[in-house]
Amino acid sequence: MITPIPEYIRTLQPYIPGKPIEETQREFHIKKVIKLASNENPLGPSPKALLALQKARSSLHRYPDSSAYQLKQRIVKHFGNSLAADRLIIGNGSNEVIDLLIRAFSIPGDQIVTSQAAFIAYKVSAQVHGVQTLAVSLDSEMNYDLSEMLTIIKREERVRLVFIANPNNPTGAYLKSGDLFSFLTELSKIRGGSVIVVLDYAYWEYVTAQDLPEPIALLKKFPNLVVLRTFSKIYGLAGLRVGYGIGEPEIISTLEKIRNPFNVNSMGMIAATSALGDLDFVKKSKTANEKGMKFWKKNLSELGVPYWESQGNFLLVDVKRGLGLSGNDVYQACLRKGVIFRPVSNYGLTQALRISIGTQSENETAFRVMREIR
Amino acid sequence: MITPIPEYIRTLQPYIPGKPIEETQREFHIKKVIKLASNENPLGPSPKALLALQKARSSLHRYPDSSAYQLKQRIVKHFGNSLAADRLIIGNGSNEVIDLLIRAFSIPGDQIVTSQAAFIAYKVSAQVHGVQTLAVSLDSEMNYDLSEMLTIIKREERVRLVFIANPNNPTGAYLKSGDLFSFLTELSKIRGGSVIVVLDYAYWEYVTAQDLPEPIALLKKFPNLVVLRTFSKIYGLAGLRVGYGIGEPEIISTLEKIRNPFNVNSMGMIAATSALGDLDFVKKSKTANEKGMKFWKKNLSELGVPYWESQGNFLLVDVKRGLGLSGNDVYQACLRKGVIFRPVSNYGLTQALRISIGTQSENETAFRVMREIR
Repeated sequence: MITPIPEYIRTLQPYIPGKPIEETQREFHIKKVIKLASNENPLGPSPKALLALQKARSSLHRYPDSSAYQLKQRIVKHFGNSLAADRLIIGNGSNEVIDLLIRAFSIPGDQIVTSQAAFIAYKVSAQVHGVQTLAVSLDSEMNYDLSEMLTIIKREERVRLVFIANPNNPTGAYLKSGDLFSFLTELSKIRGGSVIVVLDYAYWEYVTAQDLPEPIALLKKFPNLVVLRTFSKIYGLAGLRVGYGIGEPEIISTLEKIRNPFNVNSMGMIAATSALGDLDFVKKSKTANEKGMKFWKKNLSELGVPYWESQGNFLLVDVKRGLGLSGNDVYQACLRKGVIFRPVSNYGLTQALRISIGTQSENETAFRVMREIR
Repeated sequence: MITPIPEYIRTLQPYIPGKPIEETQREFHIKKVIKLASNENPLGPSPKALLALQKARSSLHRYPDSSAYQLKQRIVKHFGNSLAADRLIIGNGSNEVIDLLIRAFSIPGDQIVTSQAAFIAYKVSAQVHGVQTLAVSLDSEMNYDLSEMLTIIKREERVRLVFIANPNNPTGAYLKSGDLFSFLTELSKIRGGSVIVVLDYAYWEYVTAQDLPEPIALLKKFPNLVVLRTFSKIYGLAGLRVGYGIGEPEIISTLEKIRNPFNVNSMGMIAATSALGDLDFVKKSKTANEKGMKFWKKNLSELGVPYWESQGNFLLVDVKRGLGLSGNDVYQACLRKGVIFRPVSNYGLTQALRISIGTQSENETAFRVMREIR
């Protein structure tokens, strides 16, 4: 007999990642596979980061620097010294910071609030910890329904954290400065402002809109805010698992206490430290994304497939209306032809498919495959 | 006002890692620093692993393979196909597997049992989760008091897991095959055999004793056993954070459900996959360790400093009896001269100091420094 497992773990539906290229090659015996499923940077890793990794090789037998001294110093510099290192927590991807936040600031039976179609890791991390997720429906613009969120937070006394991705994944929608500011102001009046708001800015560097709230300015105004950033998107380092959180020292020091002392690997920290200075690569990646986004929008429009506007490096597409097939059907059909998109039925969006923007050649091939399955 | 923090997190004493070389250089303005503090492989990383990393560079923008397919296949082969891949969980270091075990199989208020001087990560992981650690005192041979452990487990109904490192860190002692077998047999009779035993074999490859129980054989006999292994020690990959657990599919699948989907980075998995085949390096590392161990034993004996026999790549030394100074005093004095040892007062062993076996030249310098501080 095995020791009893808590009910919330027994009933857990695990996260299903974008299907990996190698797995698709093995399963379908296809050599050439295009993956537009995980919002990775199609240009590859930051070249400066790769260069830095060379130097790191000889000391891999050492445990990583648990204090992440160099990387934190570099991030401080990145923000023009406008914040101190004690406001930073480095995670094994920002995913881990999400996990730490839930573990530090809630106990089994507590609640978090997010949207039905927000990054599913929030919900998974909550459930692993026995914490319930209260998910509001999307509003008419596929965005967070902030007023409904406030209503729930007022009503439910065990809400400890609110998770908002801005721009949001998988919808691509974003919250404007004024709306978010009003929300945070209202929230700060509830239960003495004790509810923590986690603003996930994983796609920040891709944003082209002018009215997305600047995270550091928000942090100065609202002490119960934690901003998440990642090296997995525009910096091209998803394989190395580095993300970070920014918040008040009181919050950060609690997260520091509960993290695994060697949570981030040495290569990841060294690569991230160098990637922050790779401005050319970031610029080039953003330009390529804008070009790819135009390609998809133009071609989808011509094909009569509607999409939702996106501030990220991905596009959510209404394949049901456009192609008469469910997101999962389109996903399966394209997969067999070597193109991996991302079904989003786990968000209740059975009609949609998420397309990560690829290189020009990947986009062209992937679009051709999608067109042919009609 | 910040949201309330659970009492068990507020009172947490975080893990203090071995002092890093760079930090020591910064603090004391010393250029040449020798670190014998974290039981790392002084010969560096596995050369085969380093070679494999070259190939991995170009795909670091991709998320890691969440299923760890290649690495699991390689581990299966390493064990001569005597176990299937569904018995393996890969962790961000075996530290993470410890954490997952506690999260999966206990709830706040439950208990774990270990020894007062067992790897402190067990206790830290437990407390982060609101789980109490019942630590038995060391027996007269600085080893686990198995009969006392059985007594406690019988008495305390909320004990869910037992943690045993074999050989043990920081003492270096090991449990013999017969003793461990009897313990596991007795334990399987308590509460229907529902208590999980975690056998941490981090130092397995360094063992020279013939009567240390073979972990795979034990697993076949006792279904509630989980064996931990790591790439951070003899394979020289501590910086990349890869360890694994072996257990019944029922246990493993629960751990798989609650882990972060991208818990292990790509470089770590690729390096570990190649390192397993680097038999020359493992052999060379083991030989170097035996030679270094002899050096320390001989010189400490001549200096009149007692030590405890060790099966690991480290030696626990009674500096109080040998040098008339506490472990912490010797640590501090040597640190100022650029040699980092490991104080172990956090285990209640104020009289002792743990020395990781270094290269010949590191051992010579470190011993000279220790001798001079008398």
